[in-house]
Amino acid sequence: MSKVITPREEDYSKWYNDLVVRSGLADHSSVRGCMVIKPYGYAIWEKMQQILDRMFKDTGHVNAYFPLFIPKSLFEAEEKNAEGFAKECAVVTHYRLKNVPGEKGKLMVDPEAKLEEELVVRPTSEAIIWNTYKNWIQSYRDLPILVNQWANVVRWEMRTRLFLRTAEFLWQEGHTAHATREEAMEETRRMLEVYADFAENYLAIPVIKGIKTPNERFAGADETFCIEALMQDGKALQAGTSHFLGQNFAKAFDVKFADKDGKLEYVWATSWGVSTRLMGALIMSHSDDDGLVLPPRLAPIQVVIIPIYKGLEGLNKIREKANLLVQEFKKKNISVKFDDADNARPGYKFAEYELKGVPVRLALGERDLENGTIELARRDTKEKQSLPMVGIVEHVEKLLDVIQQNIYLIAKNRTERMTYRVDSYEEFKKLLDEKPGFLLAHWDGTPETEERIKEETKATIRCIPLNNPKEEGKCICTGKPSTQRVVFARAY
Amino acid sequence: MSKVITPREEDYSKWYNDLVVRSGLADHSSVRGCMVIKPYGYAIWEKMQQILDRMFKDTGHVNAYFPLFIPKSLFEAEEKNAEGFAKECAVVTHYRLKNVPGEKGKLMVDPEAKLEEELVVRPTSEAIIWNTYKNWIQSYRDLPILVNQWANVVRWEMRTRLFLRTAEFLWQEGHTAHATREEAMEETRRMLEVYADFAENYLAIPVIKGIKTPNERFAGADETFCIEALMQDGKALQAGTSHFLGQNFAKAFDVKFADKDGKLEYVWATSWGVSTRLMGALIMSHSDDDGLVLPPRLAPIQVVIIPIYKGLEGLNKIREKANLLVQEFKKKNISVKFDDADNARPGYKFAEYELKGVPVRLALGERDLENGTIELARRDTKEKQSLPMVGIVEHVEKLLDVIQQNIYLIAKNRTERMTYRVDSYEEFKKLLDEKPGFLLAHWDGTPETEERIKEETKATIRCIPLNNPKEEGKCICTGKPSTQRVVFARAY
Repeated sequence: MSKVITPREEDYSKWYNDLVVRSGLADHSSVRGCMVIKPYGYAIWEKMQQILDRMFKDTGHVNAYFPLFIPKSLFEAEEKNAEGFAKECAVVTHYRLKNVPGEKGKLMVDPEAKLEEELVVRPTSEAIIWNTYKNWIQSYRDLPILVNQWANVVRWEMRTRLFLRTAEFLWQEGHTAHATREEAMEETRRMLEVYADFAENYLAIPVIKGIKTPNERFAGADETFCIEALMQDGKALQAGTSHFLGQNFAKAFDVKFADKDGKLEYVWATSWGVSTRLMGALIMSHSDDDGLVLPPRLAPIQVVIIPIYKGLEGLNKIREKANLLVQEFKKKNISVKFDDADNARPGYKFAEYELKGVPVRLALGERDLENGTIELARRDTKEKQSLPMVGIVEHVEKLLDVIQQNIYLIAKNRTERMTYRVDSYEEFKKLLDEKPGFLLAHWDGTPETEERIKEETKATIRCIPLNNPKEEGKCICTGKPSTQRVVFARAY
Repeated sequence: MSKVITPREEDYSKWYNDLVVRSGLADHSSVRGCMVIKPYGYAIWEKMQQILDRMFKDTGHVNAYFPLFIPKSLFEAEEKNAEGFAKECAVVTHYRLKNVPGEKGKLMVDPEAKLEEELVVRPTSEAIIWNTYKNWIQSYRDLPILVNQWANVVRWEMRTRLFLRTAEFLWQEGHTAHATREEAMEETRRMLEVYADFAENYLAIPVIKGIKTPNERFAGADETFCIEALMQDGKALQAGTSHFLGQNFAKAFDVKFADKDGKLEYVWATSWGVSTRLMGALIMSHSDDDGLVLPPRLAPIQVVIIPIYKGLEGLNKIREKANLLVQEFKKKNISVKFDDADNARPGYKFAEYELKGVPVRLALGERDLENGTIELARRDTKEKQSLPMVGIVEHVEKLLDVIQQNIYLIAKNRTERMTYRVDSYEEFKKLLDEKPGFLLAHWDGTPETEERIKEETKATIRCIPLNNPKEEGKCICTGKPSTQRVVFARAY
């Protein structure tokens, strides 16, 4: 089974694509740049959604839903935002198809059904939402508005990769409105913390929390906060962003509120989002040449039980015991599958569940029944052990936590090992080619230098970490003075 | 507060729109025919989703996600389906905007970014899904496929109404693939039962389960099953459909499987869906001139506690007691809100929660604290009662079930009262104008007569009920012989 996946060493990119397709997470579709999220992949996304949704509600947010389409005139209103997304917008221009005259079964766009105003398929929803908030906000009593939306968005990307960059993707976008700058900034930072918490404690991915440089900011934001993760190949992946939008959208859509003294003020805004891109981060952080490695908290199947038997009689005995185990696991809310399908041998099944990243595999044979034992295999360490049947469910319950922790620690150690302090441009370029990772380097603080480094090395400033220590130094590129190191990397 | 809603007697249609908007369920957007689902409305939809999703999973289904866009050539493949939806398709023709030369901040569609093949925004997903299933299905071992998708779809309707008919709406669409006709038919009927169960036991809406006439079938289906509900104004509303698609899509997309003997056969299909339309059914079934009446199982807030106090000291005493109650309710998973906002008088709050349809209102005053009592008001019957504080939580818990049941019974009685056996065309037309409802009448079984009745009376055949009793009679329109009555109504 593992032969079907290209090894990482051979071609990391191909490994990733093979893995996503063969493990049944997603597939390319017949629509350029769009993917099909298959049931196994969607089950992981659903788990992510449930956890995040709970976190959003615990921090006071509610869900709502806004239109998929944005009329062009609204889309234009916040100029920077519009400019940032204009080049990748899918545009609806007509609202009807008609038969091609003389060609039965063939359809064409009906030229008489041209829209007076074109509709942009939302690449992000600030415009349509702030145009709506205008009607919701009159006074300070209407604030804050703490709304989240689960939705699909479309950005017409030229080069696409499953989960990482697709023309259509699924995401959540929070859009909040506040009476003061301070409150909006507090919200922006709060949601960054929520994302970091989710990444570290559920995805098991260590992240750097930081601020984007103006070059890398969300179009229309005054400040973009982000979490950045490092993949196994040394490339960075932006795993979530939280934007302080200032009064930009309030001004573009004329959204004012009367404060306690009746004075009209523009409203302050934030927006924040994570997407199905997180699936890519999850896969690339932990998996190996045999398949996925899923953290137990996000694994659709946490435990698989596989019977090892000769005849039907043997299978029936094992079934009896296995069904009892299944019930015990379910009582503990542990998701378990007993795979007694008789069209595949145990070895094939072992490989299949390794490919699918199931954290714990139990194998139960006829001899085990006699001996009161069971074989347990961990997906993360590949360790195998014969254990007493008595107490196995409690053992697995604890083990799932251990595995969750271990997967995180492996990723954390790797990220630390692949984080370098670099003091010369030569070394910087050499590392990027030979041992890529997070490069902590001095930068003179100008967009021009940032741009030059990007052009010359394809590395970008991923972020300026929060609470970054001040340190005197010289820009690796221009030699000009610098007060802090920033995080460079090549990125997805 | 109730003054803001037009009474039903005066203008039912306006009542509905007022109610949806004022109670904070949804609002019109700046995008033609598209609505904004506001947090309170979305909270109800979320409850519906959770319950349905659980029901789908309990019947063996898993979720997945397919592209929003369907290339025109795929859309055309199943001819009847394409023909049925062609006239209401939003079409993406370009993938980029550019600046209007000389007009800063103005954008236009970039004529150089025209798509080679236009993309239809999905009005339903059979085409894209069966084009995908082609790759998933080789042998009988790959069947059945039991997949559901939660998604947005777009149908360019000319006349729109909040929730009932909008250009974009949210729904779920199940798409299953089977080895035999029998199995597919069984699935079609199973999901109809799931929908009927959901309608009656959660929405508290009685429904007639039946089969559509060929005229009213889903485009591309061999048979459409439906549940039909009757609204307070005597108009019918189709609340869910389950389609037996035969081998139509398998043939259109060439999806075959090898059976146990290695023989290639076309795959059998079903699809089934319910949408945010159910919100409209829920609202119109139960609500009154004072606002929404929500069945407890779908109410985002099941119990509201309102303090009646004079000064801050009084409020603090009430708060103490109320907070204890809140904790007790939460322990029982009853959703409760203690509204101690001091910017509105109790009378205003009473009206507001009536408008929002909260099933149980508790009012707690200083005198109640002294007497060990609390005032309870039911939204469904408007009854008010002073009750002992001791045991109030248990009382409310039981009462919520009683209210759920009562709301259903009221709707059921009304539906029965508004269901008529009609034997002459004169009476049929008179009833439609004066006392509309479900009209059980004989029909000669021809599409021509069905069409004629529709043109002359605007009534359609809602369905032929399942297990319909056979009865000799004469078609109300043509006088030709008929073997059964069918259900006619004017419909949403």
